[in-house]
Amino acid sequence: MQFVNRPYRQNTQLTTNRIEAFSDGVFAIAITLLILEIHTPTKAGVIYQSLTAELLSIWPSYFAYMLSFVTIGTFWVNHHYMFKLYQKTNHVFNLLNVFFLMCISFLPFPTGILARYLLDPDKQGTAIAFYTFGLLLPATAWFSIWIYACHRQLIAVNLSPRFVSYLTKLYGCSIGLQFISVVAALIQPFVGLAIAIGLALLFLLPLKQPIYLDQPQA
Amino acid sequence: MQFVNRPYRQNTQLTTNRIEAFSDGVFAIAITLLILEIHTPTKAGVIYQSLTAELLSIWPSYFAYMLSFVTIGTFWVNHHYMFKLYQKTNHVFNLLNVFFLMCISFLPFPTGILARYLLDPDKQGTAIAFYTFGLLLPATAWFSIWIYACHRQLIAVNLSPRFVSYLTKLYGCSIGLQFISVVAALIQPFVGLAIAIGLALLFLLPLKQPIYLDQPQA
Amino acid sequence: MQFVNRPYRQNTQLTTNRIEAFSDGVFAIAITLLILEIHTPTKAGVIYQSLTAELLSIWPSYFAYMLSFVTIGTFWVNHHYMFKLYQKTNHVFNLLNVFFLMCISFLPFPTGILARYLLDPDKQGTAIAFYTFGLLLPATAWFSIWIYACHRQLIAVNLSPRFVSYLTKLYGCSIGLQFISVVAALIQPFVGLAIAIGLALLFLLPLKQPIYLDQPQA
Amino acid sequence: MQFVNRPYRQNTQLTTNRIEAFSDGVFAIAITLLILEIHTPTKAGVIYQSLTAELLSIWPSYFAYMLSFVTIGTFWVNHHYMFKLYQKTNHVFNLLNVFFLMCISFLPFPTGILARYLLDPDKQGTAIAFYTFGLLLPATAWFSIWIYACHRQLIAVNLSPRFVSYLTKLYGCSIGLQFISVVAALIQPFVGLAIAIGLALLFLLPLKQPIYLDQPQA
Repeated sequence: MQFVNRPYRQNTQLTTNRIEAFSDGVFAIAITLLILEIHTPTKAGVIYQSLTAELLSIWPSYFAYMLSFVTIGTFWVNHHYMFKLYQKTNHVFNLLNVFFLMCISFLPFPTGILARYLLDPDKQGTAIAFYTFGLLLPATAWFSIWIYACHRQLIAVNLSPRFVSYLTKLYGCSIGLQFISVVAALIQPFVGLAIAIGLALLFLLPLKQPIYLDQPQA
Repeated sequence: MQFVNRPYRQNTQLTTNRIEAFSDGVFAIAITLLILEIHTPTKAGVIYQSLTAELLSIWPSYFAYMLSFVTIGTFWVNHHYMFKLYQKTNHVFNLLNVFFLMCISFLPFPTGILARYLLDPDKQGTAIAFYTFGLLLPATAWFSIWIYACHRQLIAVNLSPRFVSYLTKLYGCSIGLQFISVVAALIQPFVGLAIAIGLALLFLLPLKQPIYLDQPQA
Repeated sequence: MQFVNRPYRQNTQLTTNRIEAFSDGVFAIAITLLILEIHTPTKAGVIYQSLTAELLSIWPSYFAYMLSFVTIGTFWVNHHYMFKLYQKTNHVFNLLNVFFLMCISFLPFPTGILARYLLDPDKQGTAIAFYTFGLLLPATAWFSIWIYACHRQLIAVNLSPRFVSYLTKLYGCSIGLQFISVVAALIQPFVGLAIAIGLALLFLLPLKQPIYLDQPQA
Repeated sequence: MQFVNRPYRQNTQLTTNRIEAFSDGVFAIAITLLILEIHTPTKAGVIYQSLTAELLSIWPSYFAYMLSFVTIGTFWVNHHYMFKLYQKTNHVFNLLNVFFLMCISFLPFPTGILARYLLDPDKQGTAIAFYTFGLLLPATAWFSIWIYACHRQLIAVNLSPRFVSYLTKLYGCSIGLQFISVVAALIQPFVGLAIAIGLALLFLLPLKQPIYLDQPQA
């Protein structure tokens, strides 16, 4: 009788499917929890003439809800898209994905801050900057996953280098614009917010089909 | 060595199954979050004789909870029903579905408003109108998905045109009645609410089996 | 060319698997939302000497959390058990299941009421009665599903009649005891609560293996 | 015609897959609910100069959020890892798993306590001790599952005894350190917290591949 270190990697390692299922759960919950950030205002000293006025006065909540919903939604679509390009994962990759999910499920908080202070002249600057910073966090985690996966060759071997470089540029530019939106928000709040909205709308565009090297013909 | 743009659509496109699984998650969470809108009242100035009186006094919360639960539940059943009729999806279709889910997961908010103000003579009108408007939103998104799918021929090719036209009428009438309930709520709140309840009960009826053209015999 | 009403029931009807997956989602969310009912007390006029005293003083919250967690957990286990006995479903069956889920996802509310008022001499009676009533609701829905399924022969045809009658008695007795616990709670609160706890512990016992008629030998 | 007690265990018993899916749901929800514990402070008497100061002042919330997110995340990874080592389950095993999940979904509460009182000189000691105690609970449940599974031989029969003993030591030491962190927190709060952080970081290390006895060669 002897001991061997049998790999059985397929048994104990988290498969990509498992990670996607768990990530999907976190996406679905985070996106649905956003609604809990919408309240009718309870600011002391403000008395609304009617419920209509009250419900209209919280339009920043509806706006913030929609913006964050679209953002998490497009991250979810892109998450699936990206995970199809990977052929293997490793421990660091999984940790980066957990860090990414931590940033996604953090989003309801800055969404609530944006909703509450968007119309407050003293606080809207900080609120918008904080919100755009909240969007920068998952974008950064996302870019780290991609760069790490490229570096460690976790992506499909026959993915065209030109396509890989296209995605690197796409994600790199996004993170750059996201960073610019934070800086802009600190100077001109609504310029920063406009950039963030623009980026969210940009990611509503259809994703480019991945290009693979035609190996059978090579 | 050459580059080819290999389709691999089955790899990177979101499959209908994936979208259904994510939608199911959002449905399940939105329906369960409804309970968070039920609170014992904390209105200043009102002192209840007993907890019994307090728990009975919030019957509008129980009512709103049940009505919204049934509404989201029937949307869920219809979502599955409708997704079985589709043979393919595209990017716009997916975006419309995200917009639909945004309306579904918004429902806990108008549910809370209805629960809190149903018995308040000054605010019940607005609360009911807002709630019926909240129900109109997913109905509109739903109808858009259906019309788009018909227009772009995403539905099963052998689905009987008569059946397609039946569904178009069914969903069109629903949205019409939903709209009427909003208008009615602005004039006679409880008439609007009655229409909304009627519609919810109507969708508890069994769904009609889809009719397919018998192609093998054609 | 002719129209035929092709059944395709397997395509458009909700399969038992789908319903189970959705139910599992609601169970998992309802059980996890229970924690949101635990708060440190914010009763006006009460100043705690220390955080330790404060955290100890809310032991009814921990107790209510555990009792409801175990209750929802055992309902979940029994839901799987019962769904294995069914061979088909129909529309009314699905509606009854939705009603059952409505009762399950309602439980965080009576749990919060129990937690808050268990130590309040004036309100503990009502709080316990309301909680036991909250437990009676899903038990009633459960029993309705079972009776309906037996009546409409949705259960596996080769299930032993003796075993079916055993389950009918088991569920019937449970609902009877649950009802008694509500009545008892109205007279002697802690007797009612004791019965509810006893029932919860009883359902922790392993479930009996179903007995099938041995058809191959018949 | 005769009655037989047909096993059909595969039909009515909860399979490991089912339990894992339900556990995954609870993990995903508990980890996402953590964000609800982050609030901007509403302490009476404290007026912040700016929203920036306010958002910075709640850094303990961000810290507690991250620490609990990582903790639940690593428990999730380890749950999958451990469940691959089991070959069968039984009723007690399932109950222990439910108890474990009860401890996991409890974590948002001590996380909120830690976040709120970490900077309060009078309460930080208790808050940290309570939080570390909150971490000790799932660790204890975890260890109980493992010891029970070893004792009842639910783990894969060809798992190397040396590897089993390695895991027993690993989990035993963790629980020991977790216990020490609670005791330390009662004496020197930040020492206790440091141990808890150290343990969380330790579990970020990759898990050891299981070692199996090479039976084919035996």
